[in-house]
Amino acid sequence: MSNRQNDGKDDPLAPDSVGWVVPQKMALAAPDNPFMLEIGTAMKHIAVEYETYGELSPARDNAILVVHALSGDAHAAGWDKTAVEKTLSGRFKAKKEGYSPSRAYRQKKPGWWDSMIGPGKPIDTGRFFVICSNVLGSCYGTTGPADLDPDTGKPYGLAFPVVTVGDWVRLQALLLDKLGIGRLYAVVGGSLGGQQALEWALAYPDRVEKAIVLAASARLSTQGVAFNAVGRYSIMNDLNFRNGDYYDGSPPQHGLAAARMLAHITYLSDEGMDRKFGRRLQNKERPDFNFNIEFAVESYLNHQGSAFVERFDANSYLYITRAMDFYDAAERWGGGDLASACSRIQSELLVASFSSDWLYPPADCRQLALAYARHGRGVDYVEVPSPYGHDAFLVETERVERLLAGFLKHA
Amino acid sequence: MSNRQNDGKDDPLAPDSVGWVVPQKMALAAPDNPFMLEIGTAMKHIAVEYETYGELSPARDNAILVVHALSGDAHAAGWDKTAVEKTLSGRFKAKKEGYSPSRAYRQKKPGWWDSMIGPGKPIDTGRFFVICSNVLGSCYGTTGPADLDPDTGKPYGLAFPVVTVGDWVRLQALLLDKLGIGRLYAVVGGSLGGQQALEWALAYPDRVEKAIVLAASARLSTQGVAFNAVGRYSIMNDLNFRNGDYYDGSPPQHGLAAARMLAHITYLSDEGMDRKFGRRLQNKERPDFNFNIEFAVESYLNHQGSAFVERFDANSYLYITRAMDFYDAAERWGGGDLASACSRIQSELLVASFSSDWLYPPADCRQLALAYARHGRGVDYVEVPSPYGHDAFLVETERVERLLAGFLKHA
Repeated sequence: MSNRQNDGKDDPLAPDSVGWVVPQKMALAAPDNPFMLEIGTAMKHIAVEYETYGELSPARDNAILVVHALSGDAHAAGWDKTAVEKTLSGRFKAKKEGYSPSRAYRQKKPGWWDSMIGPGKPIDTGRFFVICSNVLGSCYGTTGPADLDPDTGKPYGLAFPVVTVGDWVRLQALLLDKLGIGRLYAVVGGSLGGQQALEWALAYPDRVEKAIVLAASARLSTQGVAFNAVGRYSIMNDLNFRNGDYYDGSPPQHGLAAARMLAHITYLSDEGMDRKFGRRLQNKERPDFNFNIEFAVESYLNHQGSAFVERFDANSYLYITRAMDFYDAAERWGGGDLASACSRIQSELLVASFSSDWLYPPADCRQLALAYARHGRGVDYVEVPSPYGHDAFLVETERVERLLAGFLKHA
Repeated sequence: MSNRQNDGKDDPLAPDSVGWVVPQKMALAAPDNPFMLEIGTAMKHIAVEYETYGELSPARDNAILVVHALSGDAHAAGWDKTAVEKTLSGRFKAKKEGYSPSRAYRQKKPGWWDSMIGPGKPIDTGRFFVICSNVLGSCYGTTGPADLDPDTGKPYGLAFPVVTVGDWVRLQALLLDKLGIGRLYAVVGGSLGGQQALEWALAYPDRVEKAIVLAASARLSTQGVAFNAVGRYSIMNDLNFRNGDYYDGSPPQHGLAAARMLAHITYLSDEGMDRKFGRRLQNKERPDFNFNIEFAVESYLNHQGSAFVERFDANSYLYITRAMDFYDAAERWGGGDLASACSRIQSELLVASFSSDWLYPPADCRQLALAYARHGRGVDYVEVPSPYGHDAFLVETERVERLLAGFLKHA
């Protein structure tokens, strides 16, 4: 969730890099051809931002769809050429040109899964054609609440309709249609991306050969729903929120920062936090005995909160966490019974959980794998021992590399 | 933490009730006799609110000190006569008389540990003299940030000094001095109250015969510190907070509500929340697909947040959570080594943890018991199996009753 896997050593010119990339846009809805959302709303304007890496084979059978998590984007690998160019001309100018500050972080590092995608990497762009698109409702290029509603000339704000994981997947399918890709060799994602990968296997059983679900289960736990609720409460009760119409003034940055700080705790683990910070004070031997930063872990969380408000839109946070709340594979496809839902799936399935992940706990991930195995179909279930909590799916690079490489290789 | 153990069936006239009680106040600091805080500040004005139940024996050897948790108060048992009287004359009038709305909840139910304290109950008022006092910095009668600073004529706000668990315990010892009680038969508390009980055994080894530490360990985990930090962030960044000087206007109620909602998740357990709410929608069969209450667990948390802002002061929340952060028994008394710290203790010790408590996890409570056992002294360590998380120390009434009754009986 935190783009931490890249330590900046990557280089656009390195032989295993996909190099410079330019994000693409595609219009996937228009007034005469709306996109029907699950809640029944017809969206008349949707542009989807996406990136591709590698070449589509003549047989069109080598496509891999990578799906991103809550705060991710379409920029999964390589270096964003447009971001870097705009940096060179100065950030102020870039802003004036409409360059969103929420994407400024792209200047500093490669795509969020650059460690996995590239020539010779597990998702080998020498072999596969890789697509990653930004989800509907996000603030990273695909239409979202911060965009202008052409009907009103104003940002959608909360007039944007509630979107679901199912909508995201149908929109991705539409994008693939336009790109001329019928069947995916694989779909892969972690966390909320893992749930999209699962939904792909359920909604389009004949379009997915292999599905990889990392650090995700068939639905969010009650506790997870509760954490999301508190995060949204913080945003919506920030006095700057103004019912979502904050784009001409100060955004609800403290509410969003609080939501992110809280969420960040759920991405780590008790053990991981203890190892990393313990009860160490921040740059001092004795506490100051006040309410400023005392402990290193406070400083870390504050930094996570502040950095996030620079790059994310509070309304998008509401929409995406709601999609996360609502997703329930068993309910959608099996009338509440996960095994019955899984009977639809025809893909090979890899489910990987991480031992200290308490947002999508191993027990829940295992339940998904077992439900699929009930139909006598091969499923690889792996529990990776790790102290890094939910973030492990991004942090345990070596382990995930091996899992992906192995699963994508065997035919 | 949530006063949930009383379901309202209790009755002041019941034979096992301590009946009507009237909170007492005692001045424990004065300009010519200040109380020195651990941080070095001399407090010139401190009044402590306390209650007592039962009779002190002629030998003064039957006193039990009950210590409260984060949001608790001195009203541990029976029915607050002043609260009820004021209700009868109407809430508006009560308010005019200076009756704090933060104590209105006392009208509806008996003290927070009424299930344990009374004639024939585990903390048997037919046998013991029971004292419970409110901690310094709270908003329930003992001097705190909402009180007027006599030097300025204005509420202290953030000018109130940071207080520690050590300060609380020394102030309790001073109160006992004034009441003529040298040695305690027992000190007992849960959660942050458990840490005070432990501090009693460490700071006053010759004044405590038995110490009972429920759902508490020698220090809060890094994750616990992190959750407190997010709660305080929410309060301090509520635009109504105004650096703590909000008493003449709107309090930072949304920030406080968010802090409480978050904390409340940490008082329950994943399993407990799943059992109680699951992913059930609130009073509807289908979601409304918006950002209002959709899930039952959201409704529950919202209610917890709103109820809390009616009864608690945001500044007090800052001070008390900071005390919780800072407490570290090993650091205070053993230079970082818990066993060495525990070598001071002369009391019998009962440590009880609750299997699904992840705020003060069983492993940490067990570590405390083991550190004490290193010195060859008897310690009862019990892990109570319970799905109720941290709240179990208040909810698992029967189990706790048996533990307390047994430990307080054997001589």
